Amino acid sequence: MTSAATDTYHVESNGFSTALLTDRYELTMLAAALADGSARRRCTFEAFARRLPNGRRYGVVGGTGRLLDALAHFRFGEPELAAAAGFLDPATVDWLRGYRFTGDIDGYAEGELYFPGSPVLSVRGSFAECVVLETVILSILNHDSAIASAAARMVTAAGGRRLIEMGSRRTHELAAPASARAAYLAGFDATSNLEAARRFGVPSAGTSAHAFTLLHSGADGQHEAEAFRSQIAALGIGTTLLVDTFDITRGVATAIEVAGTDLGGVRIDSGDLGVLARQVREQLDGLGAAKTRIVVSGDLDEYSIAALRAEPVDAYGVGTSLVTGSGAPTAGMVYKLVEVDGLPVAKRSSHKQSRGGTKRALRLARRTGTIVEEIVYSAAGTRPATAGFEARELLVPLVRDGVAAPQRPTLVESRDVVARGLVSLPWEGLKLSAGEPAITTSFAD
Amino acid sequence: MTSAATDTYHVESNGFSTALLTDRYELTMLAAALADGSARRRCTFEAFARRLPNGRRYGVVGGTGRLLDALAHFRFGEPELAAAAGFLDPATVDWLRGYRFTGDIDGYAEGELYFPGSPVLSVRGSFAECVVLETVILSILNHDSAIASAAARMVTAAGGRRLIEMGSRRTHELAAPASARAAYLAGFDATSNLEAARRFGVPSAGTSAHAFTLLHSGADGQHEAEAFRSQIAALGIGTTLLVDTFDITRGVATAIEVAGTDLGGVRIDSGDLGVLARQVREQLDGLGAAKTRIVVSGDLDEYSIAALRAEPVDAYGVGTSLVTGSGAPTAGMVYKLVEVDGLPVAKRSSHKQSRGGTKRALRLARRTGTIVEEIVYSAAGTRPATAGFEARELLVPLVRDGVAAPQRPTLVESRDVVARGLVSLPWEGLKLSAGEPAITTSFAD
Repeated sequence: MTSAATDTYHVESNGFSTALLTDRYELTMLAAALADGSARRRCTFEAFARRLPNGRRYGVVGGTGRLLDALAHFRFGEPELAAAAGFLDPATVDWLRGYRFTGDIDGYAEGELYFPGSPVLSVRGSFAECVVLETVILSILNHDSAIASAAARMVTAAGGRRLIEMGSRRTHELAAPASARAAYLAGFDATSNLEAARRFGVPSAGTSAHAFTLLHSGADGQHEAEAFRSQIAALGIGTTLLVDTFDITRGVATAIEVAGTDLGGVRIDSGDLGVLARQVREQLDGLGAAKTRIVVSGDLDEYSIAALRAEPVDAYGVGTSLVTGSGAPTAGMVYKLVEVDGLPVAKRSSHKQSRGGTKRALRLARRTGTIVEEIVYSAAGTRPATAGFEARELLVPLVRDGVAAPQRPTLVESRDVVARGLVSLPWEGLKLSAGEPAITTSFAD
Repeated sequence: MTSAATDTYHVESNGFSTALLTDRYELTMLAAALADGSARRRCTFEAFARRLPNGRRYGVVGGTGRLLDALAHFRFGEPELAAAAGFLDPATVDWLRGYRFTGDIDGYAEGELYFPGSPVLSVRGSFAECVVLETVILSILNHDSAIASAAARMVTAAGGRRLIEMGSRRTHELAAPASARAAYLAGFDATSNLEAARRFGVPSAGTSAHAFTLLHSGADGQHEAEAFRSQIAALGIGTTLLVDTFDITRGVATAIEVAGTDLGGVRIDSGDLGVLARQVREQLDGLGAAKTRIVVSGDLDEYSIAALRAEPVDAYGVGTSLVTGSGAPTAGMVYKLVEVDGLPVAKRSSHKQSRGGTKRALRLARRTGTIVEEIVYSAAGTRPATAGFEARELLVPLVRDGVAAPQRPTLVESRDVVARGLVSLPWEGLKLSAGEPAITTSFAD
């Protein structure tokens, strides 16, 4: 190891390997299983959530696309092998050298709603090739699903108004683009994060910070108008001016004075946003700037977004609550071995009971499109009767013989999956309050 | 852009650039400031937390080392410039092409305790070169400080017993190694995460999963003993066997039967951990395995760790609560412009008031080493009188003229900073309950 290996952003010239985004015990279990021959057994591992956090009524599957990328980069190059050699026998290290996942993965489409017990991912192959993927699969699904699930609630709370994700500074620097992606998946309109724009094609947006207004000060006092003039000169009349650095009423007056009544928008980042939005709207209208939009930000979550429904707000900027999953920063999914050589297996000690066997899942809807139930059934059994309902198979092929399915959806297509899912929920399911899952899940043999 | 640009793990061959881990508005403010000439003004930006989350009594600065790495990789190469060119004028893009931070950064040493208002980072240079660093600086400090602050509470709760970080699967895949690093900084003993071991030298550890026991089953039933034998054959008698897959009492008996009384440890991952730890200890002692350790895991946080103090637990495995900051997943630090061309500036609208001017900070302690107060004072003023107390300057040079200080501490040295900080707290400060900060911070001119 060179000293560069201690550097977070150092990467090998052949790209970043995801192989060490792994818990050590996966590789020591692998070593033991290779030695005793059980590593070759055909296994199914399933990822699912036992419950939804905080009385949520649905979850949104996020991260599937990123997971397929991570799988493609799950390769042990020399640096990863050197790290593994520190605690593994040479035969295991040799096995890792040639590692390629050659099995099958089915999963709920990215953006699909899920409920407690939904088998959102089904990974099949030898024990050896499946067990090593546990951590990277769960990290991605748990993070992205947590963000997407929180974001979807904000999207319904906003009722069609524009939502801008601006939480990058409140989460790990590389979790930030993934959060922006998950928010966009769930229906947000844009992000402040430039890496998310580049990597994932999420539309980027931004206004201005208080620092820019403060920069335009001198020994002779503040020059808010100068800051506004400069921003308009650089970004055009469609820009959004931040009007609350000093006095909001004065800030709005200055903004229109400088920009004229065609100003794109003003942003309010502090204070009682409802009261201020009404005052500012009235002021803008009085000045003839009826089309100038009002953007609000500052510790917004789905509840405060909903509380502003009656106010003249045009767009919300959401930060902390989005990237921290609004009280549920991880989705709580687990990755469990459910089948070995065709036989179901399950842990049986107190609590945390699991259901053995490879599963499939159907979602039942009325003719109107409203969903009523999810049926999880044994892949080895017969498909349950669903007469009188539209029934849709939820698990779709993601990987076959180690190769990702060619018909991988774009992020924009996955946005449609979320939008359709939200429309399919019964009314109760869209409540922001804590309660039961929107539909029940039944388990058939 | 090639299709590879949509791939999370794709990196340019010259390494990963952190330049787009940035909010768009930083670059549009830059564009406006370059155009109007204000970009050259000498500025100070400071990072600080207005409050500690959830009535915490102290925070732990985490991420400084990673931040210096990120700064070194903050370079606009062709891919980053191409992304910027989508919304910036050519002159700004040209300026970014040559970007190097050439200013000075002072900061609290990594591992230092902090309190509301502590100026944990002071960044000085032209507006242009400082403003673009806002997001990446805050992302790193907010994430790593949140994890380190939660971890430190767990460390004091564990009272010297071994703590293993195993939360990788509950957070973003690349936040996971950073979380492991922050936990180790705060006093954890080891991590399950292999990337953290490789990148940061955190000791790695691991036991086994239920999947490994379940793998050893067949049509003729379960073979827990076979799984245990296999694990011992591969990892030696010092390994820790997971005994709660089926029946814990039977699992313990089988473990000692197979391993003998020199078995390293057993892990319990479910049930009432206090009751089970006592039962298992008694059983192990009765079987003559008095030295076999008991490791517990399963939704532990600082409160449940403390509640197990009277029980015969040798080590704790902590996952979800660690990587999610135990209820406070972000530290809430902000990055504010406080000085322009030698004059203090501050936002003055309602709420969120900031103090203008470049600051320094002293921590006062009694002769016994117990800290009593923090004094934040103007760097332009005189150092406050501190007669009768030991006074320590908290801001240390991190970067001078764009170059990182050569005496950068190792992670192990930063662990000592945390350990010394925790010892310096007044008794009240170590309480897990919600309350006031352990010491008051006063602001002098």
